[in-house]
Amino acid sequence: MNAKPILIYDTTLRDGSQGEGVSFSLQDKLNIAERLAEIGIDFIEGGYPLSNEKDVAFFREIKKRNLGNSKVCAFGMTRRKSMKAEDDPGMKALVQAETPCITLVGKTWDYHATEVLRVTLDENLAMIGESAEFLARGAELIYDAEHFFDGYNANPEYAIKTLRAAASAGATWLSLCDTNGGTLPERIREVTELAIEALSDLDVQIGIHCHNDCELAVANSLAAVDAGATQVQGTINGIGERCGNVDLITVMSNLALKKKGYSVLGSRSLTPLTELSRFVYETANLQWRNNQPFVGQSAFAHKGGMHVHAINKAAKTYEHIDPALVGNERRILVSELSGRSNIAALANKHNLDDDRELMDKILGEVVRLENQGYQFENAGASFDLLVKRISGTYKPHFNTIKYRVVAGDRSIESEQPSVFAEAIIKLKVGETLWFDAAEGHGPINALDAALRKALADEYPMLAEMRLTDYKVRVVESSSGTEASIRVNIESCDEHESWGTIGVSENIIEASWSALVDAVEYKLHKSENK
Amino acid sequence: MNAKPILIYDTTLRDGSQGEGVSFSLQDKLNIAERLAEIGIDFIEGGYPLSNEKDVAFFREIKKRNLGNSKVCAFGMTRRKSMKAEDDPGMKALVQAETPCITLVGKTWDYHATEVLRVTLDENLAMIGESAEFLARGAELIYDAEHFFDGYNANPEYAIKTLRAAASAGATWLSLCDTNGGTLPERIREVTELAIEALSDLDVQIGIHCHNDCELAVANSLAAVDAGATQVQGTINGIGERCGNVDLITVMSNLALKKKGYSVLGSRSLTPLTELSRFVYETANLQWRNNQPFVGQSAFAHKGGMHVHAINKAAKTYEHIDPALVGNERRILVSELSGRSNIAALANKHNLDDDRELMDKILGEVVRLENQGYQFENAGASFDLLVKRISGTYKPHFNTIKYRVVAGDRSIESEQPSVFAEAIIKLKVGETLWFDAAEGHGPINALDAALRKALADEYPMLAEMRLTDYKVRVVESSSGTEASIRVNIESCDEHESWGTIGVSENIIEASWSALVDAVEYKLHKSENK
Repeated sequence: MNAKPILIYDTTLRDGSQGEGVSFSLQDKLNIAERLAEIGIDFIEGGYPLSNEKDVAFFREIKKRNLGNSKVCAFGMTRRKSMKAEDDPGMKALVQAETPCITLVGKTWDYHATEVLRVTLDENLAMIGESAEFLARGAELIYDAEHFFDGYNANPEYAIKTLRAAASAGATWLSLCDTNGGTLPERIREVTELAIEALSDLDVQIGIHCHNDCELAVANSLAAVDAGATQVQGTINGIGERCGNVDLITVMSNLALKKKGYSVLGSRSLTPLTELSRFVYETANLQWRNNQPFVGQSAFAHKGGMHVHAINKAAKTYEHIDPALVGNERRILVSELSGRSNIAALANKHNLDDDRELMDKILGEVVRLENQGYQFENAGASFDLLVKRISGTYKPHFNTIKYRVVAGDRSIESEQPSVFAEAIIKLKVGETLWFDAAEGHGPINALDAALRKALADEYPMLAEMRLTDYKVRVVESSSGTEASIRVNIESCDEHESWGTIGVSENIIEASWSALVDAVEYKLHKSENK
Repeated sequence: MNAKPILIYDTTLRDGSQGEGVSFSLQDKLNIAERLAEIGIDFIEGGYPLSNEKDVAFFREIKKRNLGNSKVCAFGMTRRKSMKAEDDPGMKALVQAETPCITLVGKTWDYHATEVLRVTLDENLAMIGESAEFLARGAELIYDAEHFFDGYNANPEYAIKTLRAAASAGATWLSLCDTNGGTLPERIREVTELAIEALSDLDVQIGIHCHNDCELAVANSLAAVDAGATQVQGTINGIGERCGNVDLITVMSNLALKKKGYSVLGSRSLTPLTELSRFVYETANLQWRNNQPFVGQSAFAHKGGMHVHAINKAAKTYEHIDPALVGNERRILVSELSGRSNIAALANKHNLDDDRELMDKILGEVVRLENQGYQFENAGASFDLLVKRISGTYKPHFNTIKYRVVAGDRSIESEQPSVFAEAIIKLKVGETLWFDAAEGHGPINALDAALRKALADEYPMLAEMRLTDYKVRVVESSSGTEASIRVNIESCDEHESWGTIGVSENIIEASWSALVDAVEYKLHKSENK
């Protein structure tokens, strides 16, 4: 059977950067573009050259890189009213970007033409047609029909006219945009079919551009493909304005692995997707979304004893796909709901199957720690170190002699704001004693700073790691501040993120344990390379 | 037109608690159940009484609360093989939970019956039928057909037989579960239609239970409803194992506001959804998902100059629904204003409606504090004190001159375990200065002890109060230990429990603020008596 190729259009660098809290440097944009090209994304939208200098620089620099078969696109709006296309600054900026492909956006909705642009309906058609004609002279042209589905609902004839204006003037692609993200899948499918039928006399292909405001962006994109669209626009991890664009990772996985009859990325492997997802989160300085379909850290994580027991017996019937197909992996969570089989599966990863005695020791230790309030499900790195300790392969890179934090506020006495935090630590690294102190925004930050200071000479690779999250929970909340406190720390370097845990009645002690594990995990990892 | 009612079944407390990092205390579960009942959720699954003591206690306690028309469900599996239903410990636990409704889960997939349960196909049918018959004697029975869609693909005749076994034995509802989350919407729709047709001779209604592994759980649930299902199972915010269950917030919003012909929650308003979503995140100590459809902080946030300008011109054409319908609000990211409706609602409680000027002052202060990371949803007592401060009725019962904590470990140096925490405080109570010190299990406990010591003579009623919970959250977690830290403290006396909040880069300072508010709230309360 010949699978129908669906082309993938990435707008992480333009529409994605509209997401709250997202902002890419020039270098970030270049790095992401290269990664997208590496995995075989068909179109890479780089930015809006009229809007800022960074995007202009991006198009200048990206020309020097080899992006294989991926086409870089510059994005811009139709010409201004009452102006020739060749005189319009936006048009000029697009041409000067010298990209193989240009994406032009125009108004579909009659109301937006007359009330937002303040032009007649005919002038809007002329703006689309003349802009398209001008730009199509030197580049492959994609026309993005903004608010297509809402515009079609309001005035279907006019909406189709805007598409015809672009296609007749030379656009190769017409991308139907659900700009507000409010359309339901059945309507996306129906209107896409109607549009394709209405344009059947023209030589043009259809794309789809969805937003996730009803949590239906993936279903909508797939519905459009079923209706005949052959290009899907979206962003990596679904970053974007409001609820985001459609997540291309999920779209590609569904098209290639779940639906029948389609192919993406020229049928290449999807195994780089998990790494790509994390790379984009890191670059955008965003938290990973652990429950992200296909590539999230929890996407193939299993909790609950009986269930886990069954998984080991018949993995295929408990997972909708093999996680390796998208570069992800199965994780067995150790938790209060889990039994012996969870731990066995985890220990499996460490090749401990054959050693019954060792397995029993680990199990005993986990049970003992769980009774104290430990939970290893978010602390895989601490579990790793625990296995190493019990099996005798753990080598501490430093020993704590003592540490102390002092924190408080003497504002009123000193008559100026003076919340403060200081840490003092004494460590033994090899035969050397280090005694260091540091200030911080709070006691944990001060401890982290003092620890890095003391270890910097011996272990320079610690500069690569940073703490990304810090969570605290009271384990038995019935006795208030006297209860045990569980601290989870999440750390990362450019390759992975790892969780560690500490439990104590004393929050400072719990934090210190989690911090030491985080650093030891990094050091053990570096050693194995 | 008569809208068709779709009943909503919430399993946040059972399936939701399978989510990575989710763990509810008994009090958390009771609080969530009450909130679900308040907004009119039809079925509230409370837990699995066989699995743990906490769930047994939940069913004992929840009976004492008034949940209106909401029905509490206990969850359990079919009886064990070769055992009478009435002798099975799981069956007994379900009956002893004394809930108006019981949810029974059983195997649909022939492979799972023979290979996981290790029973014949006939014995599996007997297990379903006899368990259902036994349980349906005393409660409304919902049968959850585990792996229904995968089971149907493997052996459709047998899958239907399992449904018939449950329905013939008295189940009122058959819930079709896409347990692995791997089924696509078109198949969900087709198989749901086929199942309904195959059972048309029986008096039974159909439910749908979806997981989000392909990011299609919402589309799948809606497809099943279109095929004839009249109950949707899911969780608040979609928390749950792997990629989560379907998010009921999105399902309800889509059914009531987007699709035609359906109603949910007896056509009540959906305005409490935004607050409910945040309450569940806070209770589970999870980060809010800012881009969550309908109720996320970014769901109606607009960025980018021209777009924002257009929005002010024609809001309706840039938003797929009015955000107020789900209790959310538009945010223009330049100003970062948030939470206005929540604040208005809170201030309402204090009867401040008439005083516009005071309202505006409070609003301004809350916005300022929210930008620093405060959230008053779980800190009603702190909000109370804030209102008192702004309206001039706040009288501090003591003033802090300074405080300091010292905490650490000198175990190795001293050669005996010596994790320690000490606090020193200096307060002014009336005209008297108090300088006191106390030790504690941790720095917060030490501060609490020192504070009580200093205030004991003047305010003996403090002996009546105690701290019951302590939660910590990083507010902007992108920069690790340098981020702001939000501390929530829950306190109680014999009459009520109250929440307070503190935010600072320094966890000790944040804790101190929350502690001071907790004590001041108690003292103000005692004064008013």
